[in-house]
Amino acid sequence: MVMKDLPLSEVYQLLEPGPVVLLSTSRKGHANVMAMSWHMMVEFEPPLVACVVSNANYTYAALRATKECVIAIPALELAPIVVGIGNCSGRDVEKFKKFKLTPVPAGIVAPPLVAECFANLECQVVDTRLVGKFNLFILQVVKAWTDPVQKHPKTIHHHGYGRFVVDGEMIKLKSGKP
Amino acid sequence: MVMKDLPLSEVYQLLEPGPVVLLSTSRKGHANVMAMSWHMMVEFEPPLVACVVSNANYTYAALRATKECVIAIPALELAPIVVGIGNCSGRDVEKFKKFKLTPVPAGIVAPPLVAECFANLECQVVDTRLVGKFNLFILQVVKAWTDPVQKHPKTIHHHGYGRFVVDGEMIKLKSGKP
Repeated sequence: MVMKDLPLSEVYQLLEPGPVVLLSTSRKGHANVMAMSWHMMVEFEPPLVACVVSNANYTYAALRATKECVIAIPALELAPIVVGIGNCSGRDVEKFKKFKLTPVPAGIVAPPLVAECFANLECQVVDTRLVGKFNLFILQVVKAWTDPVQKHPKTIHHHGYGRFVVDGEMIKLKSGKP
Repeated sequence: MVMKDLPLSEVYQLLEPGPVVLLSTSRKGHANVMAMSWHMMVEFEPPLVACVVSNANYTYAALRATKECVIAIPALELAPIVVGIGNCSGRDVEKFKKFKLTPVPAGIVAPPLVAECFANLECQVVDTRLVGKFNLFILQVVKAWTDPVQKHPKTIHHHGYGRFVVDGEMIKLKSGKP
């Protein structure tokens, strides 16, 4: 697998459309992954991302303690795995193993990239003021990767209870706005 | 136009998939609207939403001062209007008039609903701790409306510079998770 560097200035184009993502963390040498739809861009460059990770999730403690994660973006083909990941907990299951995902060492952070995802964003937690009340973390993307083999990945958008809208056609309107 | 009440517990199903939305505000009797993609769910019920409104935007001062807004969700047919709205400022333009949008009095908040949108969410600002550093507002949805005439609206997802992915097919996988 060869991952290609993505300029940090282009990260927003991946997250702004609202795809379901996987969140990879690692604590005491133990990597885990969860499914997440509650994220948004906060700044273009350096790219800042807000996300909500419930304190009921196994990932919460790892993210809070290590302040590092990887946002991995899956294409449509991984939808059954995304749902499987969302329906079990890292407390009970070795998810990378169970779902046959390939962890790949990241460049800067400790949590692994997910080889099967078409983009991987290495993140560090930079603000925790809203963690106590809202479980809301502010992340900075410090390195970004894309898989050049997955050329036109279709992402999935969660509507609740396993219903996902798949990316349809791309339209282009005249606009100079990023 | 007849708008139908939407249970607050279902609001997340509209915003979680990441559609471009319009943000309606009103200050000193002057209503305005902007286009926004940087938003996410924070809590199911009562529904909390985070959004980023740049302090360069005309909307910022109104939102900060009045602490009220309406998130209006446009379907594909409004895409040219959404782009038009994103490419001018309420400082210079009466946007409701210029884009022939119909303001409708909301139930609880002062800013108007947008009649042409298939869903309208009345919101109040409930946390401003991250406004100073990140322009990030936490909103509570206090009332939600849908247009029963627009039965299967397709939303649009911004990829930058006027490129939007339109909702494609809906897939259903087995999951009990909201």
